[in-house]
Amino acid sequence: MSLQEALEWRFATKSYSGETIDNEKINQILEAIRMTPSSSGLQPFKVLVITNQELKEKLHPVAFEQQQILQASHLLVFAAWDEYTPERINSFFEFSNKERNLPSSATDDYRLNLLERLNQKTKDDHFVNASQQTYIALGFGMLAAAHLKVDATPLEGFENDAFDELLHLREQGLKSTVLLALGYRDEENDWLVNLKKVRRSCEDLFIEFN
Amino acid sequence: MSLQEALEWRFATKSYSGETIDNEKINQILEAIRMTPSSSGLQPFKVLVITNQELKEKLHPVAFEQQQILQASHLLVFAAWDEYTPERINSFFEFSNKERNLPSSATDDYRLNLLERLNQKTKDDHFVNASQQTYIALGFGMLAAAHLKVDATPLEGFENDAFDELLHLREQGLKSTVLLALGYRDEENDWLVNLKKVRRSCEDLFIEFN
Repeated sequence: MSLQEALEWRFATKSYSGETIDNEKINQILEAIRMTPSSSGLQPFKVLVITNQELKEKLHPVAFEQQQILQASHLLVFAAWDEYTPERINSFFEFSNKERNLPSSATDDYRLNLLERLNQKTKDDHFVNASQQTYIALGFGMLAAAHLKVDATPLEGFENDAFDELLHLREQGLKSTVLLALGYRDEENDWLVNLKKVRRSCEDLFIEFN
Repeated sequence: MSLQEALEWRFATKSYSGETIDNEKINQILEAIRMTPSSSGLQPFKVLVITNQELKEKLHPVAFEQQQILQASHLLVFAAWDEYTPERINSFFEFSNKERNLPSSATDDYRLNLLERLNQKTKDDHFVNASQQTYIALGFGMLAAAHLKVDATPLEGFENDAFDELLHLREQGLKSTVLLALGYRDEENDWLVNLKKVRRSCEDLFIEFN
């Protein structure tokens, strides 16, 4: 499927068939998420990959009972770092330099500057920035899914605190940001599938400075 | 180029050749951004598409003098709504219903519920959510660029207030969130191009609930 076809084909699926996504495809979607770029390369998040039906049933009531939670083959929960701690930053650069066979001091200027800049921001600022990185990954995941003809629904409508509690995110220094349901559309029962896709015109969305 | 190849091929380009991206390719990248899904379909942002060199020279000093600002063929500035005002929300649903040949009342339940929920949030909350939507579009734009073998650099390191001032964003109820430089890599002078791409392992990034 071409890029343009994938963009036209995808939509925020409202009803899933219950069919399971095979491992090869789900692994390609997860790989797109893993390869997503992030600020300073930190990848300041984890992604929970939920197929367990019992767990989905616990999450369903705190996600406004949206049926995609139960029907989707895989439910991804993006969970961002609650804070950019020096430990997390230092540990990333240690890992990165090791991967690149560079001395651990190779990135000291950059790392210390980053720590200094982060130190001037609040914990809330840190989380907002980390949450934004999860949205890039959400984008990569959605486009990868469409490319593979796997349906997807991004979901912001859920009780973050309840998710954090049920998924034990707080004790890992994480907070849920956004969900991505994955599966196959149930054409017959999906109210959105046949409605026209609405997007702003180029004139409305873009401002050119030539 | 396959999805996996595009993911491997792309990197946060540090040095551009100055070559211009042709219209057909830039239009495909902008189309991916235009087609990007967003919360409730609102597309709560504008994207400034800058090729004007004089303007780039004004932005360069307030973007930590990063050379990509000057060297890139096109510089995109994502600018999110500063607030979800009832006017903006109502105007979107009016537009959307018209596009779908639905009566303007068709989405009243959804729209009024959305307005009620937004009313319980602060202006800052609104902006954070709108900014997150620009990061999905950033993701779609980056993956589309890679697919077309156009290089890209996402840039968060710039003085937002100075950008908002220079680009007259405030008076439009917009605030800059993130930049995307687009062009062609200058292999000889790019310090990053030959370094190994570092990503966390699947074991580190994903938590499975089977």
